[in-house]
Amino acid sequence: MRAAGEREGEGFEVTEGLIGGAAIDATGQPLPAETLKLCRDSDAVLLAAIGGYKWDTLAPELRPERGLLSLREGLQCFANLRPATVLPQLVDASSLKREVVEGVDIMIVRELVGGIYFGQPRGFRTNDAGERVGFNTMIYSESEVERIAHVAFKLARKRKSRLTSVEKSNVLEVSMLWKEVVTRVGQAYPDVALSHMYVDNAAMQVIRNPRSFDTLVTGNIFGDILSDAASMLTGSLGMLPSASIAESGPGIYEPVHGSAPDIAGQDIANPMAMVLSAAMMCRYGLDLPGMAERLEGAVTAALDAGYRTKDLMSEGKREGIRKDHVEFQ
Amino acid sequence: MRAAGEREGEGFEVTEGLIGGAAIDATGQPLPAETLKLCRDSDAVLLAAIGGYKWDTLAPELRPERGLLSLREGLQCFANLRPATVLPQLVDASSLKREVVEGVDIMIVRELVGGIYFGQPRGFRTNDAGERVGFNTMIYSESEVERIAHVAFKLARKRKSRLTSVEKSNVLEVSMLWKEVVTRVGQAYPDVALSHMYVDNAAMQVIRNPRSFDTLVTGNIFGDILSDAASMLTGSLGMLPSASIAESGPGIYEPVHGSAPDIAGQDIANPMAMVLSAAMMCRYGLDLPGMAERLEGAVTAALDAGYRTKDLMSEGKREGIRKDHVEFQ
Ligand SMILES: CC(C)[C@H](C(=O)O)[C@@H](O)C(=O)O
Ligand SMILES: CC(C)[C@H](C(=O)O)[C@@H](O)C(=O)O
Repeated sequence: MRAAGEREGEGFEVTEGLIGGAAIDATGQPLPAETLKLCRDSDAVLLAAIGGYKWDTLAPELRPERGLLSLREGLQCFANLRPATVLPQLVDASSLKREVVEGVDIMIVRELVGGIYFGQPRGFRTNDAGERVGFNTMIYSESEVERIAHVAFKLARKRKSRLTSVEKSNVLEVSMLWKEVVTRVGQAYPDVALSHMYVDNAAMQVIRNPRSFDTLVTGNIFGDILSDAASMLTGSLGMLPSASIAESGPGIYEPVHGSAPDIAGQDIANPMAMVLSAAMMCRYGLDLPGMAERLEGAVTAALDAGYRTKDLMSEGKREGIRKDHVEFQ
Repeated sequence: MRAAGEREGEGFEVTEGLIGGAAIDATGQPLPAETLKLCRDSDAVLLAAIGGYKWDTLAPELRPERGLLSLREGLQCFANLRPATVLPQLVDASSLKREVVEGVDIMIVRELVGGIYFGQPRGFRTNDAGERVGFNTMIYSESEVERIAHVAFKLARKRKSRLTSVEKSNVLEVSMLWKEVVTRVGQAYPDVALSHMYVDNAAMQVIRNPRSFDTLVTGNIFGDILSDAASMLTGSLGMLPSASIAESGPGIYEPVHGSAPDIAGQDIANPMAMVLSAAMMCRYGLDLPGMAERLEGAVTAALDAGYRTKDLMSEGKREGIRKDHVEFQ
């Protein structure tokens, strides 16, 4: 970002705050109040990953994940945009066939601060038979569905004007409400072709015929699952950026991947999801499209030059892969 | 089944009952009490598919799906076994690469009568802001998790002795309980290698490295989503049987696919999932392994002879496909 900023004549004031594992080590809390304040006072938040084996045995409310969830909720970043785009250079990195993934360009719009992730009541109790039960509530209100639907319809408009709403309305009441509200909001977007799909079918169609999707809108946990499935179209989770946007105030820009503790310290992590997240930040959060293009261009240039991290290489295809460094354009 | 029974010297007494759309048309109910009684009095239930466009606008409690859910619940068929096996003849029918799907043999064990499908409270209400909300409860008790875990460990033992338990315990309390109970039950099966995986990661790994799975156990809705995703490994939902088993009493044997109203009446439906479901019924429900083998053998023979339904043919691969009928062996 600094290198691209120099060429664009843009400066950034970058302040670092702790979250997740690092914050737990330093303060005992996965999201210190200081970090949340720092984020609120910023124009955008660029987030790295948050977990690791070291913190896996802590009490649930003290784990790194809770820091991430509290940040999303604290900033009310309700709209999580997860593009799954298959770059021509990486068509063969996917476990799916070339003819299936070529040209795939899906935008998943995931509701991020509601649904079963935050629904009350939740917890543990003893039932009538005297045994423990664990429970969570999947819940959406009309206004929660409305605001995410508007984001999705507007985005679809800038794309191919096709929106698929994904739920499980043949079983769940929360999904019936979801479907009804999305349909109603859709009346204000007659130029966008709206369709509805059950989540089980969507998980299948994403793999079977991914090009049939343009923009997809869904709730928190369905979006969590589907975006990870869709990531496989692109060859690697290491390629996928995301943006989480609020009605007002700073958005959060973060790679879809986690901290990948299994490869920490080996210098083989793929930085592209992070670079592309910074590009999304420039485009959606800082209104600097020129910067966004430079950052995306850097990724394309590195791929064109033949650079591949390990996650992008299928067995027996490692020849011709450059291992030196590429010059930033 | 009749043809195979003749060769095996086995007779079947087959009684037909109405469920789903057909039952709604005849009685106004998706699961008439008469059908449930008939099923209870049988040794096994072979179920066809239940829905169609015609019934899509009925009130939720009168839709075909409700009949299916009530039957599963009424018979307490809590263990839904969904094998995803890639047959050598169909390796190229998948949207995934040959080298990824070749040899895949996953058994998904899905909890079928609990979780968010049946959890209370559920429904609609008005919140403090005066707007409507829809809500469902994802809930599991210790004994519900225990019984499905025992089924999964026992099955894993008969397979490659590896069991992956899938949940979202980094976010959900119901999943924390799930993970804890599965781990505890696992102590009685020291010969089975148990691992835990988050559902988002599982959706990814099933596509990326499906051969890494042997037996997988998960809750109702995660199982619904993952089994549909896994079906794509095998080329078509039209190939996949399932068995839903109770502690005692008859099990339900049904294809994983639905009624596919979009292709009704065209004589292009794939009957293999249904035939293989009958095979599972013979094996698990009627204790007739010889019959099961004959039915499975019929499917293999048809495929070996080059027969393919449309769902198994990728564009441009339709030559050499036989369109006449194969003689039952
Ligand atoms: C780490 C976890 C809490 C998180 C989520 O489930 O939202 C992650 O999987 C994601 O998708 O960003
Ligand atoms: C039809 C529907 C209610 C059902 C389910 O969700 O269980 C189906 O998708 C299945 O997987 O058998």
